Amino acid sequence: MPDVVYENDNIFAKILRGEIPSVRVYEDDEVVAIMDVMPQAPGHVLVIPRAPSRNLLDADPEVLAKTMPVVQKLAKAVKRAFEADGVFIAQFNEPAAGQTVFHLHFHIIPRMDGADLKRHSDSMEDAEILQAHADRIKAAL
Amino acid sequence: MPDVVYENDNIFAKILRGEIPSVRVYEDDEVVAIMDVMPQAPGHVLVIPRAPSRNLLDADPEVLAKTMPVVQKLAKAVKRAFEADGVFIAQFNEPAAGQTVFHLHFHIIPRMDGADLKRHSDSMEDAEILQAHADRIKAAL
Repeated sequence: MPDVVYENDNIFAKILRGEIPSVRVYEDDEVVAIMDVMPQAPGHVLVIPRAPSRNLLDADPEVLAKTMPVVQKLAKAVKRAFEADGVFIAQFNEPAAGQTVFHLHFHIIPRMDGADLKRHSDSMEDAEILQAHADRIKAAL
Repeated sequence: MPDVVYENDNIFAKILRGEIPSVRVYEDDEVVAIMDVMPQAPGHVLVIPRAPSRNLLDADPEVLAKTMPVVQKLAKAVKRAFEADGVFIAQFNEPAAGQTVFHLHFHIIPRMDGADLKRHSDSMEDAEILQAHADRIKAAL
């Protein structure tokens, strides 16, 4: 089963190890949440379990059980912080589903009535803007 | 907070109570999984916790912790059953995010390389086809 291989040098593994920077909004013993650097909307957050798995398919069910309450906590904070009308949760498994980084992660994307989402790869957001958005979310946690 | 009201007569509440039919693929004490009647791809499954909540935002964290391992179990079965290249997990909160039924549910959608998804409301799938798809998924569980 070649598609369940976990590669230890993926971007999120490096972020979890602190080898490359990220804008963190939350962390505990199990999970880290960071700002997506190519947000599909302002306030787009990624929730990343620390435990290594390629995606949902090979994850430890115990890790999933611990991760989802954090996804909920962040979704509520993001909605409050951005006064969003809704929140979209997405999780992609394998390239056919849109996965581009092969460490399990959940997307939390605030939605506003009538506003379309940007494509994920449209542009890299300015670091100061990401930090300001992270600060808003942290204040709402 | 008007957007956390749970309405007891939503379609999924009626399905959970057995008042309207559904094509079930899995159930346990906490969760029911059914075929989506307007599938965005063949094998599109919905995982629905029995506990009443409007969506992720007002859900009991314990319910989320119990639901996600079932989402994983079904995602793996759907991928096997349809020999899918990937699996997309989606969960919509409030109309701005695409929510149309106001009882928490997770979408599991198989993805094939190069195949676009259908729009969710494009068409109602034939009941016999849904049953055949459910049988394939049950065999893969």
